[in-house]
Amino acid sequence: MSFEARLSELKIELPPAPAPAGNYLPHRRVGNLLFLAGAICLRDGRMSHTGQVGGERDLDYGREAARVCVLNALASIKGAVGSLDKVRQFVFVSGYVNAVSGFADSPLVINGASDFLVEVFGDAGRHARAAVAVTGLPKDSTVELQITVEVLPD
Amino acid sequence: MSFEARLSELKIELPPAPAPAGNYLPHRRVGNLLFLAGAICLRDGRMSHTGQVGGERDLDYGREAARVCVLNALASIKGAVGSLDKVRQFVFVSGYVNAVSGFADSPLVINGASDFLVEVFGDAGRHARAAVAVTGLPKDSTVELQITVEVLPD
Amino acid sequence: MSFEARLSELKIELPPAPAPAGNYLPHRRVGNLLFLAGAICLRDGRMSHTGQVGGERDLDYGREAARVCVLNALASIKGAVGSLDKVRQFVFVSGYVNAVSGFADSPLVINGASDFLVEVFGDAGRHARAAVAVTGLPKDSTVELQITVEVLPD
Repeated sequence: MSFEARLSELKIELPPAPAPAGNYLPHRRVGNLLFLAGAICLRDGRMSHTGQVGGERDLDYGREAARVCVLNALASIKGAVGSLDKVRQFVFVSGYVNAVSGFADSPLVINGASDFLVEVFGDAGRHARAAVAVTGLPKDSTVELQITVEVLPD
Repeated sequence: MSFEARLSELKIELPPAPAPAGNYLPHRRVGNLLFLAGAICLRDGRMSHTGQVGGERDLDYGREAARVCVLNALASIKGAVGSLDKVRQFVFVSGYVNAVSGFADSPLVINGASDFLVEVFGDAGRHARAAVAVTGLPKDSTVELQITVEVLPD
Repeated sequence: MSFEARLSELKIELPPAPAPAGNYLPHRRVGNLLFLAGAICLRDGRMSHTGQVGGERDLDYGREAARVCVLNALASIKGAVGSLDKVRQFVFVSGYVNAVSGFADSPLVINGASDFLVEVFGDAGRHARAAVAVTGLPKDSTVELQITVEVLPD
């Protein structure tokens, strides 16, 4: 099944590709490597998930936040190459969690993103990953994901 | 106009390529991708901008700090390939802002770097980007930038 | 001398490749670039180094932590391509130090990793690098390393 068909089957509708929050591009391509800009928790032009995990926010909230970021990243991929079916494989996810000092469960939060990618893309959605807790994210987003994808040659 | 000519037109003089702050290289090249080491706020061998944004430092200070980091990154590119005219396109900027907990304006700080790159390189200076606030940076630098560039084939 | 022989000469035994701490891969390859997942301070299935540098932990502890991460990264490389002798060059190390706010010595901590890579791999072990202090790491690891390597063609 194609990735676009799988997305429809899961009744997931992609948002429009998010506008960059500054003077930068949503993606840059070198050969077949597509570097996406950091995706945050934007939904319909507003922040859907803000605040720090381990403080005012719990793990479930963080996992939901990670899923919102993935939707925005997928919208960026579609904006870049026209269709999710152009994805060959996900390569790397840098997962940043807005968290209190000493927060040790960033992998559990970022699993919300990784599980979702594998649910949609199967083996092609698997990726190497680093998950770190940081002291702040753009617009107080609870999660930010920076994703690198390999796309099919034109 | 060449990028070197544009730099002259803007009356910007590059510093000497900064020496690494540890046992690492200023850049490593794979094919036409040039990975630069993290650039901090060094000027004439001393730190020009230190301390945390959102605490003792404000946004304008952070933007200036980001600009200093860009100068050092450009000096590294020149050290690596001989001339800025060898740049094909900027690919990715990871922007780290030394900031207090909960700092939400890292994009505004890192715009200081992105605006500068576009001012000098035009469309080739545009890049994908992630901006995060971190709890500390080398030598208490206010900003650190890790930049990846695509260069022209030899 | 081969890198495997050099490792034996140094009487260093690699651990088994660590299992990912979430739903992700230990590495993903694109062409000859091998992106390793973040390596933390796991030894025999338990955390060897936890806690924050600048707080309960000192620089020497951080440097040891960085060395443990390298062992895990090398085990991942071996798991990916069968032998360390398939390494052409180390490309990039993102070094995250679990640290207190304002921590300014992340380069000294991450030198524990860089020195070790150069000790084993010589010039091929040299790499570009960024070192940042973050507010938390997986399982409270003191250091996390994300390493990208260029391997020899098959």
